[in-house]
Amino acid sequence: MKKTLVVCSGGLDSVTLAYQVATEQHLIGLLTFDYGQRHKKEIEFAALAGKRLGVAHRVIDIANIGALLSSSLTDETVAVPEGHYTADNMSSTVVPNRNAIMLTIAFGLADSIGAEAVAIAVHGGDHFIYPDCRPEFIAQFAKMQALALGKTPAIELYAPYLNISKGDIAKQSVKYNVPLHETWSCYQGGDNHCGRCGTCVERLEAIAYAGATDSSAYTDRDFWKTTTAGEK
Amino acid sequence: MKKTLVVCSGGLDSVTLAYQVATEQHLIGLLTFDYGQRHKKEIEFAALAGKRLGVAHRVIDIANIGALLSSSLTDETVAVPEGHYTADNMSSTVVPNRNAIMLTIAFGLADSIGAEAVAIAVHGGDHFIYPDCRPEFIAQFAKMQALALGKTPAIELYAPYLNISKGDIAKQSVKYNVPLHETWSCYQGGDNHCGRCGTCVERLEAIAYAGATDSSAYTDRDFWKTTTAGEK
Repeated sequence: MKKTLVVCSGGLDSVTLAYQVATEQHLIGLLTFDYGQRHKKEIEFAALAGKRLGVAHRVIDIANIGALLSSSLTDETVAVPEGHYTADNMSSTVVPNRNAIMLTIAFGLADSIGAEAVAIAVHGGDHFIYPDCRPEFIAQFAKMQALALGKTPAIELYAPYLNISKGDIAKQSVKYNVPLHETWSCYQGGDNHCGRCGTCVERLEAIAYAGATDSSAYTDRDFWKTTTAGEK
Repeated sequence: MKKTLVVCSGGLDSVTLAYQVATEQHLIGLLTFDYGQRHKKEIEFAALAGKRLGVAHRVIDIANIGALLSSSLTDETVAVPEGHYTADNMSSTVVPNRNAIMLTIAFGLADSIGAEAVAIAVHGGDHFIYPDCRPEFIAQFAKMQALALGKTPAIELYAPYLNISKGDIAKQSVKYNVPLHETWSCYQGGDNHCGRCGTCVERLEAIAYAGATDSSAYTDRDFWKTTTAGEK
């Protein structure tokens, strides 16, 4: 049972990871990055997960870093693409080097608080247009980080969803009794999940695939059924 | 001639690197990290280097990240050690994972602005108690970063001082006509260099070794001659 810090955005994947780690490892904290997203809903749900699991929840504001880096996620003038992610419509939502930046900060915090592992919810469905979600990146990052901190044993990079789909993560959410209505996936800033943006469509597909229950409100709960799976 | 972004603190080493890159490569910008140091002198000199070299100078405030990480550099209650660095008195000035954090952000910016290389002034005298200054870390970081950004050719990590001493960097400063009084090394927050802290001692040794000229004011210009070289 390793003392583990979980990088948790408040989304379905990372909240499920927090619940899994709380069961299987020694969860010692959650870390959320605020990189200037349009909405704070996810962060509220990450805080709630920390409360439910009885651990400290920290937020690091990296909005000033995000502002320097080009991304539609941080630029109000660029429309959020609807429907399935594809290489074309997702590339506009990439913050350059985001995972590497977040992970180095997470490892710095892990070192400070005595964590033995950092857990992140990158998964096999994380759209292979994101090079910083690929297994080879995760492996190389862990090697780099072991050298950067120079500790023995090295702080582990734990990515148990690296080779499974979002649907399989939704199955894990059932196993670990994750309250899915206390997770947030929508890229839009509304009161409810829109049901139409890329992350909403994937969330609803995954929940249906897993036979999970989600009492979250959706503005359009059925749109996802009309879309054709893109590159996943 | 690669379009190169230089990580520049305003210290002797990184300002010399900026001048060298401006001569040998295509310098396109300087990037300074403000991680909550006690003084802003270095940043002012980094800005001045940008002005002298005619390129944009950007500052990223990561003080909130530094505040989360344990370090005497960001904690006013811990005294700055005097004299030569040794493993014992330097470990208190380590910000966990600092170079990895700074470099991932620099690579994100480099990607955003179309740089082909990121240059950093880590050097052979960077105290081998800092694992994130070692050649094996630099090599592994470059590999990780190539995978994270997934570009061909990868953005290069240029560290020309990796295996040379601070004295040899001071020699480079002569070669590239660096105005050393427009660089700042002191850990203390005074109007002048104190001449007694670890970085002042090393600066003065290096300048003497190189036969360089430095018209900077020092509160105690001769203290360094009385110290015994520590682990370097």
